[in-house]
Amino acid sequence: MTKTRATPIEDDAPRREIIRAAAELFMDLGYRATSIDAIAERMGATKGRVYHWYGSKAEIYFDVQINAMQKLIDLIEPIARGGGTPRERLERMARAHVDILLHDLPMQKVSVQGLETHVISSTGTRHTKAMRDIVRLRDDYEQMFCEVIDEGTRQGVFVDLPARMLSKPFFGALNWLTIWYRPRRLQTEEDLEAIAENLTGFAMRGILKEQER
Amino acid sequence: MTKTRATPIEDDAPRREIIRAAAELFMDLGYRATSIDAIAERMGATKGRVYHWYGSKAEIYFDVQINAMQKLIDLIEPIARGGGTPRERLERMARAHVDILLHDLPMQKVSVQGLETHVISSTGTRHTKAMRDIVRLRDDYEQMFCEVIDEGTRQGVFVDLPARMLSKPFFGALNWLTIWYRPRRLQTEEDLEAIAENLTGFAMRGILKEQER
Repeated sequence: MTKTRATPIEDDAPRREIIRAAAELFMDLGYRATSIDAIAERMGATKGRVYHWYGSKAEIYFDVQINAMQKLIDLIEPIARGGGTPRERLERMARAHVDILLHDLPMQKVSVQGLETHVISSTGTRHTKAMRDIVRLRDDYEQMFCEVIDEGTRQGVFVDLPARMLSKPFFGALNWLTIWYRPRRLQTEEDLEAIAENLTGFAMRGILKEQER
Repeated sequence: MTKTRATPIEDDAPRREIIRAAAELFMDLGYRATSIDAIAERMGATKGRVYHWYGSKAEIYFDVQINAMQKLIDLIEPIARGGGTPRERLERMARAHVDILLHDLPMQKVSVQGLETHVISSTGTRHTKAMRDIVRLRDDYEQMFCEVIDEGTRQGVFVDLPARMLSKPFFGALNWLTIWYRPRRLQTEEDLEAIAENLTGFAMRGILKEQER
């Protein structure tokens, strides 16, 4: 990822196209049933073009995770650092998080559901750096939420529990949509907003102390 | 499942042993990487013994789902029908649900995360009855929660939203543990109770109207 982000933005486009096609196939077929051939076919490209950018399917899988997680961090970090009370910031962070999940489902589904044990076991030790990067990005991301939660708890606004305990069901209420939600053909932007508002509202009620609701 | 449940309880034991071993492998390796050979090996049995009870890996997968979902229904239904206010019953149902997930993780992970698209697409139309049964059991299960939620909403105790909208993040706060939770060697029963209490508390706060908390 460091490498990808260090190159000019033009050079990112082919990789982005590949990881997007791959993410759709991982969602539809699962990791193991997805081949480099199928990824190329979905892009209307040759296998050679995919191999020009990636050495293996595992590399693509890890890059899906890294890009999806980096996108979440890039969009949420300014909100976490921005103005407003912990409650206002946490609510905006949750809402933006759900919006990204809903509008970028294949990439984010792979990302929020995390590294699958059987992918790790099948790739062995060849990708330990990518795996370390992913774990670090994920920790950084959860940590941003935990810091805002912690701030709110110290101010007596959020339930008096360790942030790490609150973040699990908080993310659960939001991220579970990657299990149950399927885009529908006639879905409107208003439908998506209703889902995002509902999930965010639930998560915020779960974390707020009674008198603050 | 109907067939399984109609036979005497003694006859269920070999099947239960098979689906339990298979569920562990599905969790560790994924569906596709799990073979009948590996299932037999984990049981310390021959492949022939597995094939005596099941015609294919897909049959075993579907039976994991059906048994796990049936177990949830069998344990939660008496609570849903029992005494107490909607709030008391919903809290007991959520707590029992999490307890079952924590103590029966491999089976329930496959079950609550649902039928994977790529398993369905790889088994084609040969298992439509099993799939219909699973969808029906899952609907029945969610419906039990929705009825209690609906009762609480009508009494003004729960947030004034359709039960189907509240049940998604409610289950999300609980079920997400099948993504993040990994049993630890030194975990005590008290650790599990703390997790269950935390997740149940969060889900209940998410659903309760302010003045009821």
